[in-house]
Amino acid sequence: MGESVTQAGFDIATVQRGARLRRSPFFDATRRAGCRGYTVYNHMFLPIQYDDMEQEYWTLLNDVTVWDVSVERQVEITGPDAFALTNLLTPRDLTKCRVGQGKYVAITAEDGGIINDPVLLRLGENHFWLALADSDVLLWARGVAYNSGMDVEITEPDVSPLQIQGPKSKPVVQALFGERVLQLPYYYFLETELDGIPVVVTRTGWSGEVGYEIYLRDGSRGDQLWDRVMEAGKPYNIAPTGPSDIRRIEAGILNHGIDMTLEDTPYHVGLEWLVN
Amino acid sequence: MGESVTQAGFDIATVQRGARLRRSPFFDATRRAGCRGYTVYNHMFLPIQYDDMEQEYWTLLNDVTVWDVSVERQVEITGPDAFALTNLLTPRDLTKCRVGQGKYVAITAEDGGIINDPVLLRLGENHFWLALADSDVLLWARGVAYNSGMDVEITEPDVSPLQIQGPKSKPVVQALFGERVLQLPYYYFLETELDGIPVVVTRTGWSGEVGYEIYLRDGSRGDQLWDRVMEAGKPYNIAPTGPSDIRRIEAGILNHGIDMTLEDTPYHVGLEWLVN
Repeated sequence: MGESVTQAGFDIATVQRGARLRRSPFFDATRRAGCRGYTVYNHMFLPIQYDDMEQEYWTLLNDVTVWDVSVERQVEITGPDAFALTNLLTPRDLTKCRVGQGKYVAITAEDGGIINDPVLLRLGENHFWLALADSDVLLWARGVAYNSGMDVEITEPDVSPLQIQGPKSKPVVQALFGERVLQLPYYYFLETELDGIPVVVTRTGWSGEVGYEIYLRDGSRGDQLWDRVMEAGKPYNIAPTGPSDIRRIEAGILNHGIDMTLEDTPYHVGLEWLVN
Repeated sequence: MGESVTQAGFDIATVQRGARLRRSPFFDATRRAGCRGYTVYNHMFLPIQYDDMEQEYWTLLNDVTVWDVSVERQVEITGPDAFALTNLLTPRDLTKCRVGQGKYVAITAEDGGIINDPVLLRLGENHFWLALADSDVLLWARGVAYNSGMDVEITEPDVSPLQIQGPKSKPVVQALFGERVLQLPYYYFLETELDGIPVVVTRTGWSGEVGYEIYLRDGSRGDQLWDRVMEAGKPYNIAPTGPSDIRRIEAGILNHGIDMTLEDTPYHVGLEWLVN
């Protein structure tokens, strides 16, 4: 293990997986690609490093990176009252979110505490996904629905996002999905297929750089999707990485669980723009 | 690392802690005591191994073990409607749970799915703790309360349990708390102090052996409590251990997240006795 993955006074070799902890559809691919470190997030393994962290930063800034973010588990909300419930879960005004559009939102508790800060996708008038940070929003949403009298279904679907970030993400997704993907405005998405693999492609990411996410809709096809992305990225120096904390801190992106918790409201952490 | 902490095809050295992941009040003590492996549970580190697993099993069966289970975070429910809400969260009939008594309960969703299987302690008519398995019941409980019209407060207090298990746990807790602790019936508890450290001592555990848990009520006193327990246990070969999966499987104790999940009801996993 490189020195850069050892944190002050704590040998990472002592952190162990357990059978409770789930693996992503890309897990085997990340092993083969030489992933050197995982953490645990939403009861799953999150790959955090393949190479020197400065090298990963420069790949993100100059070329294009692939990061397995399947741990951003989706909560899917459907049913006649799906809009009403989802709009209740977040202080952002979802009447301004079109079908085919996403929004970065805060999910807040009854006292305004930040429960989570997902990317929300509106797939239909009454069809939403929340791509979660590390807390069980499935339980919160089902709890809120419990006594609400609303007619909704709240589940965790088989959906696993993969981030493609950096300036050369554009030619990579173009090679995979054609010209139309370059027309996507920031936070919009399209539902499509790649070699018959059902995906949603979004103009989003957690990097501060231009980028896309490919939401895999069939967990059995993870290896195939990974290989197609790496192949399309070869001419652009594509490399698998973990999160770039250097870049996201430069960009002022907050990390739920560290920079904001249930003890903070959006007003405490500079996210008042998420409140309408 | 011993071979016994390497799991098939996966090098534990690649599992890494992150800043999101909290440490227990006993964390430094577990490091000093030579803990060789941690996993992640309720957004915290859970010590899982110090010695050969068979050796830990025999210590549990013959002598006495100490296991830091601070990850069993408490959800505290108080307020005028605390009994009503808590009784709604579980299918077990809490009218049969006295103040000073605990119950092993299932927390179930609207469709009967098992959200968690905590030890519940009733500290007052309207004062409950739930010592949790690995899911955010705080969010579920607050969600259910949200539209319920019930007057309750639901928080995560500064309470960290430590398990003392095995046949010689009796003389150890007797040395610490006196004769009266030996009078505790199974699943009863007492609120007391040790050198001014506020604790709750329960006749419970996750081991299949006779045992106690000491719930520390002041996180700043973790080191002190650990040292007092180790000192009292010295004549009885006390040793720190992780969970004994060998013993708990022998005893038929289920592990939430593996043996039962949100997809199972109590009837699917032989826990129908938790439903009244």
